[in-house]
Amino acid sequence: MANLQDLLIKMEEHHSLFENEIRNLSVPVCKAFINNGKIVPSSFKVTSQEMGTKDAQKVNEHFKKTAGNSKNKILEAVPGENKKTGLRIAVLFSGGPAAGGHNVIVGIKRALGAGNTLLGTVAGPKGLLAGEFFEITEDAVKGIINTGGFDFLGSDRTKIKTDEQFAKVKKVVKDNKLDGIIVIGGDDSNTNAAVLAELLYDDHVMVIGVPKTIDGDLQIGGLLPISFGYDTATKIYSEMVGNILQDTPSSRKYWHFIKLMGRSASHVALEVALQTKPAIALISEEIYEKRMSLDQIVGNIANTVSLRAAGGINHGVILIPEGLIEFIPEMKDLITELNEVIAKYHEDLDELELPEKKDFVYKQLSAVSAKLMASLPGEIETMLLLERDDHGNLPVSQIPTETLMIQMVEDKLHMMQKHADDRKHLGLDEKQEAKFQKFKFSTLNHFFGYEGRCGAPTLFDAAYCLNLGLIAGSLVIDGHTGYIAAITDLNKGGRALALPLTGLLNIERRHGADEMVIEKALVKINSPAFQFYEERRSIWARADHFSSPGPRQLWGPVALQLPYTVALNQGYSSLEFNLGDAASLK
Amino acid sequence: MANLQDLLIKMEEHHSLFENEIRNLSVPVCKAFINNGKIVPSSFKVTSQEMGTKDAQKVNEHFKKTAGNSKNKILEAVPGENKKTGLRIAVLFSGGPAAGGHNVIVGIKRALGAGNTLLGTVAGPKGLLAGEFFEITEDAVKGIINTGGFDFLGSDRTKIKTDEQFAKVKKVVKDNKLDGIIVIGGDDSNTNAAVLAELLYDDHVMVIGVPKTIDGDLQIGGLLPISFGYDTATKIYSEMVGNILQDTPSSRKYWHFIKLMGRSASHVALEVALQTKPAIALISEEIYEKRMSLDQIVGNIANTVSLRAAGGINHGVILIPEGLIEFIPEMKDLITELNEVIAKYHEDLDELELPEKKDFVYKQLSAVSAKLMASLPGEIETMLLLERDDHGNLPVSQIPTETLMIQMVEDKLHMMQKHADDRKHLGLDEKQEAKFQKFKFSTLNHFFGYEGRCGAPTLFDAAYCLNLGLIAGSLVIDGHTGYIAAITDLNKGGRALALPLTGLLNIERRHGADEMVIEKALVKINSPAFQFYEERRSIWARADHFSSPGPRQLWGPVALQLPYTVALNQGYSSLEFNLGDAASLK
Repeated sequence: MANLQDLLIKMEEHHSLFENEIRNLSVPVCKAFINNGKIVPSSFKVTSQEMGTKDAQKVNEHFKKTAGNSKNKILEAVPGENKKTGLRIAVLFSGGPAAGGHNVIVGIKRALGAGNTLLGTVAGPKGLLAGEFFEITEDAVKGIINTGGFDFLGSDRTKIKTDEQFAKVKKVVKDNKLDGIIVIGGDDSNTNAAVLAELLYDDHVMVIGVPKTIDGDLQIGGLLPISFGYDTATKIYSEMVGNILQDTPSSRKYWHFIKLMGRSASHVALEVALQTKPAIALISEEIYEKRMSLDQIVGNIANTVSLRAAGGINHGVILIPEGLIEFIPEMKDLITELNEVIAKYHEDLDELELPEKKDFVYKQLSAVSAKLMASLPGEIETMLLLERDDHGNLPVSQIPTETLMIQMVEDKLHMMQKHADDRKHLGLDEKQEAKFQKFKFSTLNHFFGYEGRCGAPTLFDAAYCLNLGLIAGSLVIDGHTGYIAAITDLNKGGRALALPLTGLLNIERRHGADEMVIEKALVKINSPAFQFYEERRSIWARADHFSSPGPRQLWGPVALQLPYTVALNQGYSSLEFNLGDAASLK
Repeated sequence: MANLQDLLIKMEEHHSLFENEIRNLSVPVCKAFINNGKIVPSSFKVTSQEMGTKDAQKVNEHFKKTAGNSKNKILEAVPGENKKTGLRIAVLFSGGPAAGGHNVIVGIKRALGAGNTLLGTVAGPKGLLAGEFFEITEDAVKGIINTGGFDFLGSDRTKIKTDEQFAKVKKVVKDNKLDGIIVIGGDDSNTNAAVLAELLYDDHVMVIGVPKTIDGDLQIGGLLPISFGYDTATKIYSEMVGNILQDTPSSRKYWHFIKLMGRSASHVALEVALQTKPAIALISEEIYEKRMSLDQIVGNIANTVSLRAAGGINHGVILIPEGLIEFIPEMKDLITELNEVIAKYHEDLDELELPEKKDFVYKQLSAVSAKLMASLPGEIETMLLLERDDHGNLPVSQIPTETLMIQMVEDKLHMMQKHADDRKHLGLDEKQEAKFQKFKFSTLNHFFGYEGRCGAPTLFDAAYCLNLGLIAGSLVIDGHTGYIAAITDLNKGGRALALPLTGLLNIERRHGADEMVIEKALVKINSPAFQFYEERRSIWARADHFSSPGPRQLWGPVALQLPYTVALNQGYSSLEFNLGDAASLK
């Protein structure tokens, strides 16, 4: 009998009991791929507007070759066979990691089969520019299936956009005799894929994109319900938030302010809110849409905290999306003004001590911005004055939004407890008044981010990614370029699509110039997911109605769950996904 | 067909798909309880020293009634039947929540059966003093089985120790006609249980303890392998740490400093280290035992970071136990000196501005402490001077240990990169030198704590707790008082024990007086668990050997895992637990 110490040593390097078992999990594949698959024009009819672009004409002019070739028509995988061999395809990860990336590689490898060569690009676009590749073997693929992370290849955030970089890519592609590149990335990386597809069109090098991002902001209505990684990340955050919610009526003394990763859109916060039902979840897009001020936001939170306290509930959870600050119109204005003032006067300002600097800056601000700035806690005010990034801009992501909220809500509550006038709008009776006066606002704050990017994928992400990989591989086998893989009908076997990347591009003003980019998809406040949240939230605010969705399960009766936002927005009638038959392919 | 919105509304209030399914999970029970169970003297022979006490005689004198009655002998549950009815038993949670508490209540209720009354105490010892109880019905028990949190009753940290409080308890017990109280809590709460058992002995009111704490510091060798909640908390933290480890070679740019909850002992950090195998895990007890200085600790970390960088690995994970600071001997001395200085001169100090205050305090410190204080980052230095709790002591838990470590390691690395003398001990060759010079130390920090206390219990904690509850219930049915429930033989069906609380007590100097308390069990550096860690850590330090233990599974092939430290320290040959047959009791 081996002793336990020996068993534990065998578990090193990705061989935990869990990791060993998930490698043996069967993953469902869409019907199209049961015996390979081939790519045909889709019967799926959509307008270019539905696909995402509002500038089809200009984009088509700019992307003459790929748009001309695709005519912005959608392709689809169907059962079939393709025996092309001899291709050399490189795959790369781009940007922050997301769960399921390894399964995309497994899918590509399966689609390419033994007759073609799949190369892994080391550490992202940087590795492509450096020409760093290694061959991905069948054995290696068996080691990574269903595991989390991007560590099999590594990733980075290099953007390929200069002429020098383009020349490098052309050389690397030629030197390595590449027939195609598959880019696994978010909105920017897929924009980059569109550019590279156009660049390499005459060299007969195909470029295909695969939609990744935990933020969930790469999605296109019924065509691309979600990017991969979102489901795993939100299920990880939902478990943590659910655990903390469960803690609140156990300990009965804390308000937890929880910031959730997601630089811009609030898809993550909305999904976690739907799964856990906290007292409050801020949704940036709603705040922007309704032109809410910081004072209004803080006031709303303070009202909810007060009413719960008056009802004897001294605890709760507040979800805050990481990107909140830039969606508060007046904060955005203030930051813009500050950036301008500091850019204009930075030489004078450098000479001044903090108090004088403050005086000087205040005088340059508009009255509205000056008032807002004066209302902020001292350390935030100082931070706004001092910190600038390499481009002279305020690094907004570094503003501790959750601490800012805590301090401002605390101040507001203090005033409400002190002055009858400040709380009369609550309409408290005598008993409620007494409880509210006794209430002590104790807070804790958290940031859930990095722990959600590289967890083992949920069964949904595992299956979704394997199929996305099968689509990407089938596209290059069939000689297509300039497409992004997509799957719809997630509740009835999955429909494997390929969307023309040019059909997704829009013109956006960036750094003072027009750029053609895939726009980040924000939360729509008229979407079924948001509207459901809006309908329930006042009930969740007044008393505990929360749920703990628990740790994601890879086995057992609750393993097959879609993101709630996706199921709602796609109009499905249950949370269960169906991406085909699990027995057919490992 | 119901629409999805309706289904989602039905999931409110603890009815997620997961929560609904875990209520149907069968939980194994030890053989003793398959058809009830009865309590008999155990054949288990241990000395009082092995049980935990070094002061048996003094303790026995002080606890004349309960120690006289139990003679400090261990009891054991065996198959049997007991038909006692008409008892009124109150149960309460005490202290921070831990996963599995609800199953303890389920177990007690099962043991008491329909013929006795189980009362829930509202919100901990405070509720006992106030006489706030409610009857726990069969229906309620069905709702809480296998769920996380202490929210069914609530908890608090009130200690019952004054004569006035004792009188109150006596009155409440009489008014409510209680025959027994079951206290679910940690070391302090079980000390309190011992005191109450003695206090209420002549009133024929039984008091029983159940060992709870995520910190794992309530454990007694082979008699009580672990407290409940530890397994769930460490599995939650291990998943998060595993996810972040998986992120490090994916992103290839960050060192993550992760602080783990646990006020005193490092059991949590050691367990998480064994499950995930990070580059570095600090174990407070080792640091204390080896009298390591802060500079040594920082130097060791900087060496590991440097050697990895020299080998091309610019990332890693460092685990830091929350209680670290107080285990660094020189830090402990500094804090003691500071507390004394500030207590002595606080009136003079209040008059001074920060720079003068600093000067003044420095002059009062010993040379060693002054030097150490001067070596700390500015904000920590200021914090040490300014912050005091209500007792005039420094709130050590508020020192941001992870930030302190980051700043000091950063400074050390800076010196090592700058001065050849400071790195010559690394023995780098030219190529390694070049890599080390290019290395940029980018860090992120995390604190994993509250998210681990109220998650749904692992199958181990679920089963362990149900059986602990069965023991506690059987003890009061059989008329015993002054015992704590315990289970051993976790790998072969479970042996259900009851340890006399007085056998666990020791004399400890607290607040200037001798108190009889259950001592916190610290990590023993000669234990198999620590020694295994010590044997492997240099390998884990130099290159990635990590594993991702994944989210805890309630179904499937990896659901039955013990904590690694427990399996190692108990000398088991596998990680699989066996607490009996799952079919017998729900």
